[in-house]
Amino acid sequence: MTASPMLPFDDRGFAYGDGVFETVLLRDGEPILWDYHRARLRRGCEVLGIPMPSDAALEATWHTADPGERLPQQEVLKIVLTRGSGGRGYAPPLTPFPRLLSHRMPFTPNFSRWSEGIHVCICDLRLAQQPRLAGIKHLNRLENVLARREWQREDIAEGLLADQQNNVVEATSMNVFWQQDGAFWTPPLTQCGVAGTLREALLSHKLIAVAPLPLSELCRIERLWVGNSVQGIWPVVALVTHDGQVQKRWTRPTSDVLQAAGHRLLGFAA
Amino acid sequence: MTASPMLPFDDRGFAYGDGVFETVLLRDGEPILWDYHRARLRRGCEVLGIPMPSDAALEATWHTADPGERLPQQEVLKIVLTRGSGGRGYAPPLTPFPRLLSHRMPFTPNFSRWSEGIHVCICDLRLAQQPRLAGIKHLNRLENVLARREWQREDIAEGLLADQQNNVVEATSMNVFWQQDGAFWTPPLTQCGVAGTLREALLSHKLIAVAPLPLSELCRIERLWVGNSVQGIWPVVALVTHDGQVQKRWTRPTSDVLQAAGHRLLGFAA
Repeated sequence: MTASPMLPFDDRGFAYGDGVFETVLLRDGEPILWDYHRARLRRGCEVLGIPMPSDAALEATWHTADPGERLPQQEVLKIVLTRGSGGRGYAPPLTPFPRLLSHRMPFTPNFSRWSEGIHVCICDLRLAQQPRLAGIKHLNRLENVLARREWQREDIAEGLLADQQNNVVEATSMNVFWQQDGAFWTPPLTQCGVAGTLREALLSHKLIAVAPLPLSELCRIERLWVGNSVQGIWPVVALVTHDGQVQKRWTRPTSDVLQAAGHRLLGFAA
Repeated sequence: MTASPMLPFDDRGFAYGDGVFETVLLRDGEPILWDYHRARLRRGCEVLGIPMPSDAALEATWHTADPGERLPQQEVLKIVLTRGSGGRGYAPPLTPFPRLLSHRMPFTPNFSRWSEGIHVCICDLRLAQQPRLAGIKHLNRLENVLARREWQREDIAEGLLADQQNNVVEATSMNVFWQQDGAFWTPPLTQCGVAGTLREALLSHKLIAVAPLPLSELCRIERLWVGNSVQGIWPVVALVTHDGQVQKRWTRPTSDVLQAAGHRLLGFAA
């Protein structure tokens, strides 16, 4: 675990959420799916007009351990890149000096969620549609916070988020995957949502494809999962109300092809 | 000018924009329109579920000068209230310890904009509609930053922002007011936008009323202004393209009733 850095009040990441972040799984000190994280960071920098840090600066965020230090097997590395300080109000400085901050914490996956599956609810909040910001992992995450505040029950592991047309987009901190007609699918993220790196990796390996998922179809799909590049893939075994009443059950697959593929990409033992 | 405070990396205001802020005009060390600022802060706290600070804690943000210190006549006080640190990812802590930070800077209004008026453009960005967050001054302000990045010309003072139905909502850091049929109007802010305290004060004094303003009607209105509680009210004398070409001119009123009323509320000399 690294010491938590401090930042100044006038940092634009703090003032306006003017920046992007990545949450990266480290195994034995090396980042997993790094090419995907770097690609999303680059897209975020392009969208916001923030200069992309050098590879050396990014690599320094995980090359911080003493050579002799015994690393925890798995850690989570959080990298935050902001436009830095300055500018006049919302107007950014013409030549920004971005601020790159990072923090590393030990991490253990939640194995019981892998094997037993989870319960999810459908959040009341509907995601706003902003194509200019869709897909990137920017620092404006109040919708996710408000959605995650909708329930406190420990037996609800995630909440599904739909847009204002009632199409499922994602979960509060994970992407959504489902099985229908023998294939695996994930919703489009052109209007809202965060394009997770595990989702991108599954897409580029052609293990999943993009299709819309109306809320009204949710109870008719064969199987449902949520997942991200840190926690792996959780099969959803029940859709429940905010107070835990079961609305739909899915049986836990004996052979979970999607989870196995995702965990292979993340280097988790099968 | 107070020293700029520091905050920790794990502050949720930095991580997610999980907080609200106020930008308050101080005159001789006392806040102007404070009741309106406090009311908006309280609404923001209710929406986000953050405990409202005590009046004593809020008053301490401007009672920071030495008794013998000669204050600049006008200052701007920025107050930021975040949910503090903690929680598990987006899930907030059940008992948050909010963080209240503030910073004071000398301020002089832009007198030439008061008297000569300004040019505005129409931003290409369309505001996303999120009724859960509309009106409050939360820390998720990337849309304002992206909109303000659309032009660099010094002769364009503000940019008008419309929603996805092409209704004018606000300017990047100000509210919008217009005159039609002898009355003064401001757009509704139920789907997006920030409910400025000057706008609230003008509404509660019945000097303005709420009405929609489609972009298609903009060139037909009699007069247009933008304003906020720090800068006062700027009459708009021209609508221009991003590269400065004039699309519509309004004549500067010889007697500006709305500006006079607004500046009286702000204590600016007529």
